[in-house]
Amino acid sequence: MRILLVGAGGVGTAITRIAARRPYFDHLVVADYDLPRAEAAVAALGERAARFTAAEVDAADRAAVTALLREHRCDVLLNATDPRFVLPLFDAALAAGADYLDMAMSMSRPHPERPYEEVGVKLGDDQFARAEEWTARDRLALVGMGVEPGLADVFARYAADELFDEIEEVGVRDGANLTVEGYDFAPSFSIWTTIEECLNPPVVYERERGWYTTEPFSEPEVFDFPAGIGPVECVNVEHEEVVLVPRWIPARRVTFKYGLGEDFIGKLRTLHELGVDSTEPVSVRTEHGTARVAPRDVVAAVLPDPAGLGERMSGKTCAGTWVKGVKDGRPREVYLYHVVDNQWSMREYGSQAVLWQTAVNPVAALELLASGVWKGAGVLGPEAFEPRPFLDLLVEYGSPWQMREQ
Amino acid sequence: MRILLVGAGGVGTAITRIAARRPYFDHLVVADYDLPRAEAAVAALGERAARFTAAEVDAADRAAVTALLREHRCDVLLNATDPRFVLPLFDAALAAGADYLDMAMSMSRPHPERPYEEVGVKLGDDQFARAEEWTARDRLALVGMGVEPGLADVFARYAADELFDEIEEVGVRDGANLTVEGYDFAPSFSIWTTIEECLNPPVVYERERGWYTTEPFSEPEVFDFPAGIGPVECVNVEHEEVVLVPRWIPARRVTFKYGLGEDFIGKLRTLHELGVDSTEPVSVRTEHGTARVAPRDVVAAVLPDPAGLGERMSGKTCAGTWVKGVKDGRPREVYLYHVVDNQWSMREYGSQAVLWQTAVNPVAALELLASGVWKGAGVLGPEAFEPRPFLDLLVEYGSPWQMREQ
Repeated sequence: MRILLVGAGGVGTAITRIAARRPYFDHLVVADYDLPRAEAAVAALGERAARFTAAEVDAADRAAVTALLREHRCDVLLNATDPRFVLPLFDAALAAGADYLDMAMSMSRPHPERPYEEVGVKLGDDQFARAEEWTARDRLALVGMGVEPGLADVFARYAADELFDEIEEVGVRDGANLTVEGYDFAPSFSIWTTIEECLNPPVVYERERGWYTTEPFSEPEVFDFPAGIGPVECVNVEHEEVVLVPRWIPARRVTFKYGLGEDFIGKLRTLHELGVDSTEPVSVRTEHGTARVAPRDVVAAVLPDPAGLGERMSGKTCAGTWVKGVKDGRPREVYLYHVVDNQWSMREYGSQAVLWQTAVNPVAALELLASGVWKGAGVLGPEAFEPRPFLDLLVEYGSPWQMREQ
Repeated sequence: MRILLVGAGGVGTAITRIAARRPYFDHLVVADYDLPRAEAAVAALGERAARFTAAEVDAADRAAVTALLREHRCDVLLNATDPRFVLPLFDAALAAGADYLDMAMSMSRPHPERPYEEVGVKLGDDQFARAEEWTARDRLALVGMGVEPGLADVFARYAADELFDEIEEVGVRDGANLTVEGYDFAPSFSIWTTIEECLNPPVVYERERGWYTTEPFSEPEVFDFPAGIGPVECVNVEHEEVVLVPRWIPARRVTFKYGLGEDFIGKLRTLHELGVDSTEPVSVRTEHGTARVAPRDVVAAVLPDPAGLGERMSGKTCAGTWVKGVKDGRPREVYLYHVVDNQWSMREYGSQAVLWQTAVNPVAALELLASGVWKGAGVLGPEAFEPRPFLDLLVEYGSPWQMREQ
């Protein structure tokens, strides 16, 4: 297997470190619009760098990405960029006859009149709309294959297959007790993506009603996270699991709630009220005349790079899927989860916990595709595949998942 | 008198509208880095535009400003830009042998080790450091001649001359009940300047201690504003009056408190915690490669232009000086103030209240200089001049000041 990884940011770099220890692929090309960043990711692998090459590419340039896939004879494109680049990369892979994986799906657009009640264009709609082309060409686009979405969807499928006869609700719940020394505010994941998912209208699925939306930060609940993290206030956030799970798993209700905490929510609200979350470029004077920049890009540029925070960070992050339903005629409730301790991920991989937790999943999924344990064609979510081999492989990677009966 | 006005933003444009009705000057050149903005200000004067010319100039380019002053044989430069451009404009005026007026003084720099206890470089220090050159060349730099600083300092001098034998405290207090229809957050004054003054360490003067600083937003107090505005929470903010008043008026204590309100303070705090208040350029990707932009400029670009909000704004703004002391052996407390109703300033001048209130003062001050009622050389604050003629002229301008005994 020859892989083109696009994006050498925090997640992309963690992917190279995890993949470098696995023998299943022949070559991995690390491409970024910032070539030194790609080169740094490869150089950091040291003795393990032999199967890796750095390259420069603009993820928005479909033709250039197709050419790069062909030049390096890649079988698969692994997209580790932010969601703006999903469609050009998705198209480039199909054009080059390659398979495709991503960890976030094509972007949503709110309903023009009733943004906080009805869905407009949902996450991934633009990808599912092209599913027939992928099927016809017998190529696989495995979408939403990070941790959330990704592992969270695998958990949902596992619950449906082995733990429940009937599922009332699948509720993905994400929380952490991470702190970053020396910073008032230092998000542990791409602020660009965090703003996108937190300020878009959250999507909820109910069997009778279909998909619908609410106001941002709706339905706060306190969820008690395991591994010493404890209770964290969680709110509805737009996330891929809510659009993926109902396509393959019969659940009456699907939600995603993120343990943002009051302070973080307040800051995001302020960014939004001021309009500096916007991706619409504004004209700003620079030393060399006027430039048009997206305010959100400036916020991202100002905040510390999440990938560089690992040394100052401490605590754990937990991603998981809470499932409520019936088994053998009796009510059951479980939380299937995966915890990464930052101290461990830094020591073992030099990657901070949140980025490492996202990165390990596509590396494991590619391994299952390389060995033929997972196979398929079309546009498929993680819950379209057998969950057991994936969950077992995570244990083999030294990062076991767990289950709590509630 | 021939005037070069630099800056055709909100205050600059209001200056042209007020000045157009006064016969005391021969010509006024309106210069801006954005020529269409200067041209629009002149065009808006209609039949009254004859004494006005628009010009293009970069306020940071001292040589270009000097050349423009000479080309138009200007006697005085009126600076209506933001505080970043104080020093080049101040220097350009002296180089061209012109007098100079501004409404904000050269910028402060916090104390490197103890920013919230000791002053570093104070507001205006860089201007006062050159006072001898101005005196030697018999030219006048009248600094801080807007409303606050400006009229507030005139009030302090008036109190010292006519209302008190001894002054315990001069406390400038600014509050408003302005609302802007259709906006969650729409500052009525330049956000660039507002961030600068609100997030710098506030400066306080005490006779025994000299100037010192505190944490931002310190010493909250509720001040009851007149004219139906009512009680507003005010906090310490860095402002020129605190450095100007003690130079000419014997007061035991001088403070400036701004009625920002809790919501506004919260938003400014968030901007600061995120670092998007910074003026330090960061690299951001644009359509045409990477550009270096100051995050604060992006915040300013995103927010609505305060000058364009007048039609949607309603309410009143109050600027004033509260003075506490002794007269004829008895304690006395007064609040000298000036209120502008947005409805009035929009109807009469097409300018919103806060900008109009800032603009009227330098126009009146120039009139007193043109007639020789005010004269001087060196770097002087408004409190260095006879207050009565100025206060009378404001009444003649149709915008009377008032006094409340407390």
